[in-house]
Amino acid sequence: MKQYSEMDKKEMKKELEALRLEYDKYQNMGLNLDMSRGKPCKEQLDLSMEMMDTLYSGADLTCEDGTDCRNYGGLTGIRECKVLMGDMMENNPDNIILYGNSSLNVMYDSISRAMTHGIMGHTPWCKLDHVKFLCPAPGYDRHFKITEYFGIEMIPVKMTPEGPDMDEVEKLVSTDEAIKGIWCVPKYSNPQGYSYSDATVRRFARLKPAAKDFRIFWDNAYCIHHLYDDNQDHIIEILAECKKAGNPDLVYKFASTSKITFPGSGIAALASSLNNLEDIKTQLKNQTIGHDKVNQLRHVRFFKDIHGMVEHMRKHADVIRPKFEAVEEIFKKNLSGLGIGEWTKPNGGYFISFDTLPGCAKEVVARAKKAGVTMTGAGATWPYGKDPQDSNIRVAPTYPSLADLKVAAELFTLCVRIVSLEKLIEGK
Amino acid sequence: MKQYSEMDKKEMKKELEALRLEYDKYQNMGLNLDMSRGKPCKEQLDLSMEMMDTLYSGADLTCEDGTDCRNYGGLTGIRECKVLMGDMMENNPDNIILYGNSSLNVMYDSISRAMTHGIMGHTPWCKLDHVKFLCPAPGYDRHFKITEYFGIEMIPVKMTPEGPDMDEVEKLVSTDEAIKGIWCVPKYSNPQGYSYSDATVRRFARLKPAAKDFRIFWDNAYCIHHLYDDNQDHIIEILAECKKAGNPDLVYKFASTSKITFPGSGIAALASSLNNLEDIKTQLKNQTIGHDKVNQLRHVRFFKDIHGMVEHMRKHADVIRPKFEAVEEIFKKNLSGLGIGEWTKPNGGYFISFDTLPGCAKEVVARAKKAGVTMTGAGATWPYGKDPQDSNIRVAPTYPSLADLKVAAELFTLCVRIVSLEKLIEGK
Repeated sequence: MKQYSEMDKKEMKKELEALRLEYDKYQNMGLNLDMSRGKPCKEQLDLSMEMMDTLYSGADLTCEDGTDCRNYGGLTGIRECKVLMGDMMENNPDNIILYGNSSLNVMYDSISRAMTHGIMGHTPWCKLDHVKFLCPAPGYDRHFKITEYFGIEMIPVKMTPEGPDMDEVEKLVSTDEAIKGIWCVPKYSNPQGYSYSDATVRRFARLKPAAKDFRIFWDNAYCIHHLYDDNQDHIIEILAECKKAGNPDLVYKFASTSKITFPGSGIAALASSLNNLEDIKTQLKNQTIGHDKVNQLRHVRFFKDIHGMVEHMRKHADVIRPKFEAVEEIFKKNLSGLGIGEWTKPNGGYFISFDTLPGCAKEVVARAKKAGVTMTGAGATWPYGKDPQDSNIRVAPTYPSLADLKVAAELFTLCVRIVSLEKLIEGK
Repeated sequence: MKQYSEMDKKEMKKELEALRLEYDKYQNMGLNLDMSRGKPCKEQLDLSMEMMDTLYSGADLTCEDGTDCRNYGGLTGIRECKVLMGDMMENNPDNIILYGNSSLNVMYDSISRAMTHGIMGHTPWCKLDHVKFLCPAPGYDRHFKITEYFGIEMIPVKMTPEGPDMDEVEKLVSTDEAIKGIWCVPKYSNPQGYSYSDATVRRFARLKPAAKDFRIFWDNAYCIHHLYDDNQDHIIEILAECKKAGNPDLVYKFASTSKITFPGSGIAALASSLNNLEDIKTQLKNQTIGHDKVNQLRHVRFFKDIHGMVEHMRKHADVIRPKFEAVEEIFKKNLSGLGIGEWTKPNGGYFISFDTLPGCAKEVVARAKKAGVTMTGAGATWPYGKDPQDSNIRVAPTYPSLADLKVAAELFTLCVRIVSLEKLIEGK
């Protein structure tokens, strides 16, 4: 089929008419499908059910150093779980603080602490007139919601397949003292599934921020979340690279087991320099007596070590890989050569990023919704929910069943075609 | 034996000499005992081990409304756990938000949110020049640490067996707009084990604060933590009373299962008016996707209902009641009639409060430490760690074994006698 833009108006209208008939059929199916959030599916959750057996009434809930995990204490978490999370994050256990069930909460908390107490002796951000964050976009909506909630001005930065546009990042960060941080999902980025190139990570580690309390918020959410055995992205470990570059305190790094065991019942962790950790502990000791050590122990007993965790992730991949491939196949089958959309083909993570023709994303999402398929809201991948091109849509293939997903993807491509044609006809 | 103060100097010196010999014996025993923190003992933790069996690989982790507890979602917690915690807190489940493992963290978070965002549309506290809190003293050191960390000025208020001195509270709260809150442990207070009288609770509910964003931080940590079946304190439920008094939004109420199941692996909850909850949810939805629903379900499946929880608390009482009674007996045996100390005799909670002669507490704690018995630091029960009388010491009898506890209590009374005599001799 030829590119839509090369069709004449009559051809377009004919095509549109046929597509609308097809759309009507979907509308009559009473669909209720959800491709909006990066949620694991039931089969994935079932993979961790044996974790529920690792602790039982006869089990010894004492950890290696003799601590009774059931009681109070252990502000920064139990050693063996720091080792496990450290191996997962490629960091020394001494550089890790274990938290509760949500790394998002740790990020929120890190911003909140900077607002009220400042970072390592610097002025609390709430005492400053302007605080700004760089937001590589498209990016993760929940990151943007946190900075928006705190009234931090968000500056979009262009994302490329190599990571954020580092020329722009370096220029902004080195000249504007009000810029206090940047949101990064460095591996299998949300929503594109891009992984930062070695050059990008090295340039991050060598940033010379005007603000001495500038921090990179490095959300390594998908560090071991590969789709393939033989085709895995690898990124340079940022803490080590910062240390080498003489910038040891530049990064807060976050991760969790939310998409490894149970979302909401996993372990979150923060890795950073010892200086940063000391600074954070000043808060932490006033904030809690300690996080859930029993759940930390449960995770260690289940995985035993990082090898167990990696093997576990292969099972996740086996469940979700066919879903990513099905979406890719349907996108290719229905959209290739039409010149009305582009999409990413990640090696891991939870998302595919789709770009429509400019000005079509909102309408595509609305059409899909009307036929019973929920997508992430158009614009959500941009700060303040404002996609200047109105073109980016995040596709989350993991949660629906393969059968449902295929229907949803077919409908989605149909909506893309209809909305694109309408747009093109309007422009003729 | 006659009161120490009625002895002449010679009698005192003779008594002191004998006590010092006894103290030397303790020093040679190489003791290492801890009466410092309100930690459950191993036997208490063992009471909840069967909770580890309630969820297992074959269990259905779906809750009553069909939610899969393993997955993301459920911002404010699962319904059946709200019912359980609501029954425990004597509140409607609709007035409850479930949190993670630590009510201390919820209190910290409530202050932090007020600092950065204000309460229900009022100016964020971080934008004000002065923020003050009333601190009934002696009180809970970790409360005071939170307000100190946020630079909130703490004003001690006198504690009585009926609760805080309400004349003082009413006067201060109604005249000073900078006073934004008060810390309360209304039932089996930390450290005295006092429970607020009906009159006190009613006066709290009828406060007319100058500050519209004044909140009572009602830490009902020991709501069902009785020592006796037949001698239980009861306090008026504060949310209902505030509603009756036309002050529905005046209170944040906190509780947790930390001293019911496992400290650090329990469920924390906040109860408040729907207005306050709406205000809090504005933050919560940016802060997390939800707390640990699997652990919420685990608790519900273990207790089934509030009756199960109450029966469980009777087992706790059976373990710790003999400890409270042993301490009381030793205090009575060694100190009665000497006029050098007073102590409380609570019906529940985790502490006994001891008052030495003025100026003796620090030295008593130091002496005990030197012989291997750790007490809560003298002064800890006051804001900024400053007990103006240097007389209050918190005694925590739950953690040591009964045998150890008896040794520790004997040594403690010995230290009280020695230090008191030294003080009295000095003063003659």
